[in-house]
Amino acid sequence: MSVEFEISGVGIAELAERYGTPLFVYDGDELGGRLLGLREQLHPRLEIFYSLKANPNISVCALLHAHGARAEVSSMAELITARRAGVAGEDIIFLGPGKSTSELAACLDEGVYTVVCESFGELKILDELARERGIEARVALRVNPSFAVKGSGLTMGGKPRQFGIDEEQLLAATDLVDRHPNLRLMGVQVYMGTRILDEEPIVENTRRIFELAERVSRRLGFPLDMVDVGGGLGVAYFDGERDLDRDLLASLLNPVIDEFAQRHPATRLVMELGRYLAATSGTYVVRVRYTKTSLGQNFAVADGGTNHHMAAVGIGSYVKRDFPIRLLNRIDEPATETWQVTGPLCTPNDVLAKKAALPPVRPGDLVGVTRSGAYGPTASPVLFLSHGYPAEVIVHCGRHYLVSERDEPADLLRRQHLHEFAPPVAVGAER
Amino acid sequence: MSVEFEISGVGIAELAERYGTPLFVYDGDELGGRLLGLREQLHPRLEIFYSLKANPNISVCALLHAHGARAEVSSMAELITARRAGVAGEDIIFLGPGKSTSELAACLDEGVYTVVCESFGELKILDELARERGIEARVALRVNPSFAVKGSGLTMGGKPRQFGIDEEQLLAATDLVDRHPNLRLMGVQVYMGTRILDEEPIVENTRRIFELAERVSRRLGFPLDMVDVGGGLGVAYFDGERDLDRDLLASLLNPVIDEFAQRHPATRLVMELGRYLAATSGTYVVRVRYTKTSLGQNFAVADGGTNHHMAAVGIGSYVKRDFPIRLLNRIDEPATETWQVTGPLCTPNDVLAKKAALPPVRPGDLVGVTRSGAYGPTASPVLFLSHGYPAEVIVHCGRHYLVSERDEPADLLRRQHLHEFAPPVAVGAER
Repeated sequence: MSVEFEISGVGIAELAERYGTPLFVYDGDELGGRLLGLREQLHPRLEIFYSLKANPNISVCALLHAHGARAEVSSMAELITARRAGVAGEDIIFLGPGKSTSELAACLDEGVYTVVCESFGELKILDELARERGIEARVALRVNPSFAVKGSGLTMGGKPRQFGIDEEQLLAATDLVDRHPNLRLMGVQVYMGTRILDEEPIVENTRRIFELAERVSRRLGFPLDMVDVGGGLGVAYFDGERDLDRDLLASLLNPVIDEFAQRHPATRLVMELGRYLAATSGTYVVRVRYTKTSLGQNFAVADGGTNHHMAAVGIGSYVKRDFPIRLLNRIDEPATETWQVTGPLCTPNDVLAKKAALPPVRPGDLVGVTRSGAYGPTASPVLFLSHGYPAEVIVHCGRHYLVSERDEPADLLRRQHLHEFAPPVAVGAER
Repeated sequence: MSVEFEISGVGIAELAERYGTPLFVYDGDELGGRLLGLREQLHPRLEIFYSLKANPNISVCALLHAHGARAEVSSMAELITARRAGVAGEDIIFLGPGKSTSELAACLDEGVYTVVCESFGELKILDELARERGIEARVALRVNPSFAVKGSGLTMGGKPRQFGIDEEQLLAATDLVDRHPNLRLMGVQVYMGTRILDEEPIVENTRRIFELAERVSRRLGFPLDMVDVGGGLGVAYFDGERDLDRDLLASLLNPVIDEFAQRHPATRLVMELGRYLAATSGTYVVRVRYTKTSLGQNFAVADGGTNHHMAAVGIGSYVKRDFPIRLLNRIDEPATETWQVTGPLCTPNDVLAKKAALPPVRPGDLVGVTRSGAYGPTASPVLFLSHGYPAEVIVHCGRHYLVSERDEPADLLRRQHLHEFAPPVAVGAER
């Protein structure tokens, strides 16, 4: 009898049987526990806002909210999701460089805590929307800083960007408050990078953002009700990467937070976390349909790949690096072989793992890509080859819940309209 | 009065107003005309099968079918789409390295012309399904050739692949016909590459595939009812690329086809085309929401990007190269400036054009990425940041038809289930 992978005490075979494959399973105990652990260690004045873009499932959001997360959203649907998941308007912030007028209006109508504005044009639209409603809109300014901190992964500062307003332009806009009588400028947001796996750059980013926030608020003459230090905390996916050391991070970061918090006793301090909260909880479960060898290489062709988990496939990366992958239904067997695990798509790039160390793989086996709770199906081309969205399940305290339904062909066809076109005159039936 | 972009005589402003943005517009005249032109020039024995993966919209498929295309499908939903679009089972082939048992069963039940089998395991499953039904299943063998032809873009031959069966293994499987009493082995398929923009490799591929098909059928002892020479014909997207010269292609390819066709008067000759048929008809239309400068660079932030058109953004490519892009509502204005056109996502990679030569751009302008009829929204992460699927419209003979509906937030939330989680005991309300 072989040993199988379990999530919160529930065996993977049961989940795969019950909900089918491909399947994303989220370990709710891990999801909630990770947030609690972080909140216990980081400075109590730092509020964690969950970035829904990492995993916008409404139950994932609800679970994190039950464990104390607020919400950072970037679209109308994300705003609705957070509200329905129980997050109060005052605990929601709305970000994004291209907000529509209706999204901005919804921010005001739902009473979100602040709109993080990213351009002078957006401030103008929001001022007008607030005027129409006879209210004062709370606005934070996203700053594109003139500095960059090394080690911040995909670095955001010091470069021309579509995000925020250049620090220099902002500091020159000394009439900004006066120009917008219906806005309450009240905060500053800066986002420095993503997938950061070193503690020091996070601390240094935070220090620099606090300085910048004070500089901007002093110069433009608005109070600092909020400073949002962004996020970008990474998780290790690949060989040679290590996870952030939370003890070390807390020991370095908390004094910086404390110093600022003492001087600004009424300022809300916000950190946005998406990947860091959601990634480790998730496993992408596929079933092997075929095995074969080609020119001496082992291939396992599974029922899902790029279409559900583009990040694991590595599209968008310069180099294909394998996410952690396991044979789920026989975790006790030694990994004696090297396998290429592919998806069902008709492109040679559809490779979940290029060189996975696995036991001998057979059709019917369940293979899991772990650390897959963030930027999974919603960040993947789920309609490619019309396979559709996979099922998503949360297992929490030993019970499992379907939190997103699998697409059936009828779901994919529902939005489409068939128009019948007459054949052109020149085309006969002979061909 | 400025001049606007028109599609089949319909102005872009009217389409954007009527259907909203972001929007994919397909020029039905171009779509049908392109296929007719190709059919007129290529050898009459060569049948064009439309690869639905390039654009699986049912009306796109119906329009191409009305102009003589058959269908190449790779999933249950694509099979259903082709059938509903009016393509007869005998004009459909089903490909893909990871077909499910239910997809294989549907192939038999719908009477598709052939299942292109890609592994020994798949042959076994199909043989069993045919036996259960008391029928003989028509099967073509996908061969992973031991040769590669230079210039075939993303080359498929001569490498270990998840696709097909290695030529060497196949030639050694001399009992293949006997082992599968319920299969009628009747054809060979080879796919050599993609985005091919030179005529010679296409001709050379075809010649080599004909030779290989004869070799395999002779060795294994089955008739050649069909040879599928794959496809992979490209279209020019980037600076320095040129489109295939159809006259030259026909003059080189037709003699090769003719020679084989003469020797095999009853063999169906199949070419699969997706991108080549669909790409040039499509325009991705976005509206500019904000303009800004950052460190001296012009940015136009539009309402769509990576989430609808990942290929244009260049994710998955090593180098960002701009698709052709135009200011649609003032096509008469000279392109005097350089703009970076971005989408609304919160990632610096969300760039539709990095260095577009455009007239001065203003909020409200319509920008179009042309040649966008293939591998558009269905090959993009449409759910990223929960913006959802864009609208799709066909304009044909001066009339416009909505062929796919835009996602509303309710559509994105419909598949999700909200489970309420109790807060953990340790979490108070103070935070």
